[in-house]
Amino acid sequence: MKNLVIDMGGTRLKIGLFADSELLQSAVVPACSQENFENTLRIIEQEAAKLLNSFSMAGIEGIGLSIPGIVHTKENRVISINEKYNDSIHFDLNAWAKKRWNAKLSTENDARAALAGEWQYGAGKGTDNLVMMTLGTGIGGAALIEGKLLHGKHFQAGCLGGHFCIDFQGERCNCGNLGCVETKGSSWVLPSIASSKGYKADPIDFKSLFTELEQGHTKAREILQISMDAWGACAVNLTHVYDPEKIIIGGGVMKSKEIILPHLRNWIKEYAWTPWGEVEVETAQLEDTAALYGMDYLLKTM
Amino acid sequence: MKNLVIDMGGTRLKIGLFADSELLQSAVVPACSQENFENTLRIIEQEAAKLLNSFSMAGIEGIGLSIPGIVHTKENRVISINEKYNDSIHFDLNAWAKKRWNAKLSTENDARAALAGEWQYGAGKGTDNLVMMTLGTGIGGAALIEGKLLHGKHFQAGCLGGHFCIDFQGERCNCGNLGCVETKGSSWVLPSIASSKGYKADPIDFKSLFTELEQGHTKAREILQISMDAWGACAVNLTHVYDPEKIIIGGGVMKSKEIILPHLRNWIKEYAWTPWGEVEVETAQLEDTAALYGMDYLLKTM
Repeated sequence: MKNLVIDMGGTRLKIGLFADSELLQSAVVPACSQENFENTLRIIEQEAAKLLNSFSMAGIEGIGLSIPGIVHTKENRVISINEKYNDSIHFDLNAWAKKRWNAKLSTENDARAALAGEWQYGAGKGTDNLVMMTLGTGIGGAALIEGKLLHGKHFQAGCLGGHFCIDFQGERCNCGNLGCVETKGSSWVLPSIASSKGYKADPIDFKSLFTELEQGHTKAREILQISMDAWGACAVNLTHVYDPEKIIIGGGVMKSKEIILPHLRNWIKEYAWTPWGEVEVETAQLEDTAALYGMDYLLKTM
Repeated sequence: MKNLVIDMGGTRLKIGLFADSELLQSAVVPACSQENFENTLRIIEQEAAKLLNSFSMAGIEGIGLSIPGIVHTKENRVISINEKYNDSIHFDLNAWAKKRWNAKLSTENDARAALAGEWQYGAGKGTDNLVMMTLGTGIGGAALIEGKLLHGKHFQAGCLGGHFCIDFQGERCNCGNLGCVETKGSSWVLPSIASSKGYKADPIDFKSLFTELEQGHTKAREILQISMDAWGACAVNLTHVYDPEKIIIGGGVMKSKEIILPHLRNWIKEYAWTPWGEVEVETAQLEDTAALYGMDYLLKTM
């Protein structure tokens, strides 16, 4: 089966051409996520034409879109999306796939697409009960229960792992909730945590903080402790609500996995209630291509 | 279909006889949950004999057990149970149902059984995406997603709503986790919250506190505010993780639903991220018989 799959990031579009589950080639191009959504589709069409050309392919059978928002996967439409590809909500993706590609279409939230990829080809291979946590600017997530991606009535189940309240008397999150994991452990909150600790650096990000931590910088340790404890609390909550065998952690910050993984494993060992044994915690393996592989898999199982 | 169903509470056993989905009669007898589990089965057999006798029934087709613990519903065995019916873990329930009743057996966690009852006959009728929260000594729960009770790999998904961390730098819960909802909003924690507020009463329970609140007692309001805010944070977390249409609240404390429901509804309106609309919050309707009706329904759909 020949599939074209696209991972629509806020700053980059990743486009992959698959044949019989093999990623033949991929391209990464700048996204224009703030512009008219039709511009994005035009870029996809142009890049796809190049990919197809280089393999002398006349067409594709399936097209898959991994979208950074809440997606109605049965009707293939974007329900809610924030600060990128905003007008995709009004777009008839089915008609586009039919008219432009004469191919079947699969759409999915990007975190679920990545989890599907990790499940089939990466860190989740061989287990049907997985949770993914992606640490970065925000905290993303997805859940797979008994071999099925969890969607919920309004297609937002599993995706809001960063918006657990873990501090019910805490500060307001940008989602509107109180004391979400993101208010303690995402890169957007680092400046305010740092300033409350009297630490000054500009820019301030996880990468520089972890480097300083390794150099023995006390303030960096104090700041990261808050984030890492919040991630730990999030992982325990995910364990309690979705009952997985394994939690997969993704995101650029996992370059510091030697520090993060032991912390999360210890936190879970100490605080999770799992009379059956212990949840495994592993780093995502596919990184940039997880959502591409995931979408190819979802197309195959449609 | 003639079914005998039993709701195994810590202090009482409720036994119901159903014919064609109608509860013909039920009996409530003291439980001996601290004794040998075979004593419990003997009581069930004796009470069942009386019920069957009074309807001149020779036998039953199905037997359903609603159990206050983690239950392997496919193998019909108790995986984990705490401070009641402890030795049920080693008991072959399938053999008992076959030998004693020659009937098919269904087992389920008590919160899931109650949710199944409310879904089919009570506050959840007509919706296939529900979450239940039962407030009391502890906080129980269950989730129904797309018309399926959520179980998870180890049969504990959905049941641990009281063990969300909502205060990641907070006190240890009796489950081992930090800052669970139960450490802020269950009756077992009321004495310590009350004493921290300089309030003295013995016994102290939700019923008396809500009575005092209605009489304008300031300390009672302060104490209950903590519990009710914790329930609110729990309801928002349940909304974010399971994406339901409706949350059903059960437990004796709902005698004060005129105070509790508006608080939870306001909390959700203020803090939940639900771009599709608003989660409904309703009181459980079946109360004492929810698990009985739920087990009868589960037997019918086996």
